Amino acid sequence: MSLRLTILGCHSATPRINAFPTSQYLEINSRNFLIDCGEGTQRQMRKYKVGFSKIDHIFISHLHGDHYYGLVGLLSTYGILSREKDMHIFGPKGIKKATMQMLKISESHAKFNMVFHELSSNESELIFEDDKVSVRTIPLKHRVYTNGYLFTEKEKPRKLNMLNISGYPEIDRADYLNIKAGKDVVLSSGEIVSNLELTLNPPKPLSFAFCSDTCYKPDIVPIIKNVDLLYHEATFLDDRQGLAKKTKHSTSIEAAKIAKEANVSKLIVGHYSGRYKDISLFKKEAATVFENVDIAETGKVFSVD
Amino acid sequence: MSLRLTILGCHSATPRINAFPTSQYLEINSRNFLIDCGEGTQRQMRKYKVGFSKIDHIFISHLHGDHYYGLVGLLSTYGILSREKDMHIFGPKGIKKATMQMLKISESHAKFNMVFHELSSNESELIFEDDKVSVRTIPLKHRVYTNGYLFTEKEKPRKLNMLNISGYPEIDRADYLNIKAGKDVVLSSGEIVSNLELTLNPPKPLSFAFCSDTCYKPDIVPIIKNVDLLYHEATFLDDRQGLAKKTKHSTSIEAAKIAKEANVSKLIVGHYSGRYKDISLFKKEAATVFENVDIAETGKVFSVD
Repeated sequence: MSLRLTILGCHSATPRINAFPTSQYLEINSRNFLIDCGEGTQRQMRKYKVGFSKIDHIFISHLHGDHYYGLVGLLSTYGILSREKDMHIFGPKGIKKATMQMLKISESHAKFNMVFHELSSNESELIFEDDKVSVRTIPLKHRVYTNGYLFTEKEKPRKLNMLNISGYPEIDRADYLNIKAGKDVVLSSGEIVSNLELTLNPPKPLSFAFCSDTCYKPDIVPIIKNVDLLYHEATFLDDRQGLAKKTKHSTSIEAAKIAKEANVSKLIVGHYSGRYKDISLFKKEAATVFENVDIAETGKVFSVD
Repeated sequence: MSLRLTILGCHSATPRINAFPTSQYLEINSRNFLIDCGEGTQRQMRKYKVGFSKIDHIFISHLHGDHYYGLVGLLSTYGILSREKDMHIFGPKGIKKATMQMLKISESHAKFNMVFHELSSNESELIFEDDKVSVRTIPLKHRVYTNGYLFTEKEKPRKLNMLNISGYPEIDRADYLNIKAGKDVVLSSGEIVSNLELTLNPPKPLSFAFCSDTCYKPDIVPIIKNVDLLYHEATFLDDRQGLAKKTKHSTSIEAAKIAKEANVSKLIVGHYSGRYKDISLFKKEAATVFENVDIAETGKVFSVD
């Protein structure tokens, strides 16, 4: 399985007993990311068995408390756990000063480096890249400066076509790495066997787009086009269009429109306002526009193979 | 019932699923106080049905995350709930700047005033007083500047001795307020009836002392002498005396010694280190020194009548 998303919290700000604020744990192509960190996230990580030490990168969409107030406690805990590896934190400009001041006043002595990557651009930018995954920002529009994040797997190596390879007894395991890397094989006879014959296309790189919080913003469609999984906030149902507009949030219908326009494979909605008791209505309403939709629920896992 | 303490969280810093950091809700003589505010306190308040609007005073012992990192989220929520009343926050010097900066960066717009009372003295001082309750600091010794808090009921009005009053048909309801206030009654005959005859002693004013976090500090004994209820931290059992000393925490035996020396009516221990799976051992061990001891547990309520 190469993409697995665990919902640690998916509700909006007002505290309720079983309504945790936004946080998600993303496993993608052997990388592990924490996305947003509302109050109580570290407890949710324990509850849903997220390995603390696996996370080296945290992405904060914006600095509203229900997406950010759990960060300082989590970093403080990493200090208590004697973490030594660098921790990279991506978030809006200002996040470093506020976070560090809070840690300083608590005299939280961390042995590890906190590397803050402060964001201020209103254009989509590449902010992380290694051999497995790249991450781009998705500029959103909310009451404060906000980014969504697009996580994309890197192109994977071609797969061996064992059926065809077995037709060439001369080709052995020692050649496999070169073949996977796309090279042709030259037999002892001088005959060249084309790589295309010896390999199958690699699995399509998967992608996940996280979009919270934001008003309806169709200009993000080109950035998230064809993603496998889209999380898009839907704070309100269509009955509160005015309130959505005023608070710069989206309705479930608007989230579904974005999903449809972007031709995504699957939509997840979340960040429900506390006024709605029955969150299944968000799915029902969104499905009138975009069929393959599901609702985020605390502890729920979404996998893409 | 004039004193009621609800434990919202009673564990030390490392996050675990059902181990919430320190916070307590105190109802005393019709006043309602929040003491300490670790991460997740606002959720615990909802869970244990603490009325948000009842609280006008928050007392923070020290600025370690497990006693303080829930404050900013709670204040932010009060903003969302459109609170208008002043909120008084008592805590170490520096609490205002750190808290306000966090609220500012989140653009949390509160309509209510946050009145910070910053503490820096190493002597016990009276920090709050009205007609019902007074609050004094209890200077503690921890790795950072820390105060415990002593909550004491004001002397209550004398109670009417209805049996004796009924012996004087001339005395009616209109006189009761004066009698409660301690005045004698002059009958139409000129005879003076002594207040002592018409009243009973008022109930003894109750008191609660909150002492967390601290190393063993016997010089607090005079301040908390004879309190009805003492919460004293016991992070470790006696097997970790060295660690207690190093981290400036107490053992259950040390908490019990303080309770015994101060002649308190009842001791509650809490703030257990995560290394202990069976917290009943804290009670067992403390009881070898001071018998009337109980353990803090999340959601537990202690009442004194």
